[in-house]
Amino acid sequence: MSVACIFCDIVAGKAEASPVFEDEHVMAFMDIRPMTPGHLLVIPRQHATDLSELPPELAGPLFGTAQKMAAALRKSALKPAGINLFLADGVAAGQEVFHVHLHVLPRNTGDGFGLRGSFSWPHRMSLDAHAAQIRSACEFL
Amino acid sequence: MSVACIFCDIVAGKAEASPVFEDEHVMAFMDIRPMTPGHLLVIPRQHATDLSELPPELAGPLFGTAQKMAAALRKSALKPAGINLFLADGVAAGQEVFHVHLHVLPRNTGDGFGLRGSFSWPHRMSLDAHAAQIRSACEFL
Repeated sequence: MSVACIFCDIVAGKAEASPVFEDEHVMAFMDIRPMTPGHLLVIPRQHATDLSELPPELAGPLFGTAQKMAAALRKSALKPAGINLFLADGVAAGQEVFHVHLHVLPRNTGDGFGLRGSFSWPHRMSLDAHAAQIRSACEFL
Repeated sequence: MSVACIFCDIVAGKAEASPVFEDEHVMAFMDIRPMTPGHLLVIPRQHATDLSELPPELAGPLFGTAQKMAAALRKSALKPAGINLFLADGVAAGQEVFHVHLHVLPRNTGDGFGLRGSFSWPHRMSLDAHAAQIRSACEFL
């Protein structure tokens, strides 16, 4: 457990939450500041500040649970027409709680939620250059 | 392979792409309409229209590869300060290509990318009611 981590407190049963699912690896509970009704979070029980600290063997339980929660939301009385998954890794990406959490957001047309920003249409040469930079970095993982 | 699926064509080597990574389960390549420089996609090689069709055993390879891509991006010359993961499941959620894909977006403060929408602060009773509805639906998965 990390010092003063609200999600570790929820895992330990020391902080209030509205739980949806738990197993040996992960927990899912309602986001207390939902962006759409039914917005929930999936977290690893084990503290991991960000993706770099998340043990690779928890990738499957975390995403697999988000997939299950998406299926449950679709079958629930909330009946969303779609689902978004979202994760913020680092302050610059909007991370506010420093314990990895995958957002599962029920969606309906016209609900006001979405991405902010714009697309660009780079030349293939530019895409290839970025791909090469990232491939090079893969060698040092 | 699905009829007329651009991502299946990329997997089959029949459509152009700027590839970053591949293994037996997944491929990662640059998004041709990046929202930030270095924006890439991780997909299962096997066609799955949406999360409901994605075999659960591919959850780990898909998310684990996104985690690796996040690490590679951070070590790359692109040097983002953060990373967002995003997935759209269904038209109402913004899905445009009907082959599951997990977006990996490099982030920097002030880059213009983010979430659109607003938070609400429901009472605990309302969160508990949503949690109960979703838990009930879990029983029918």
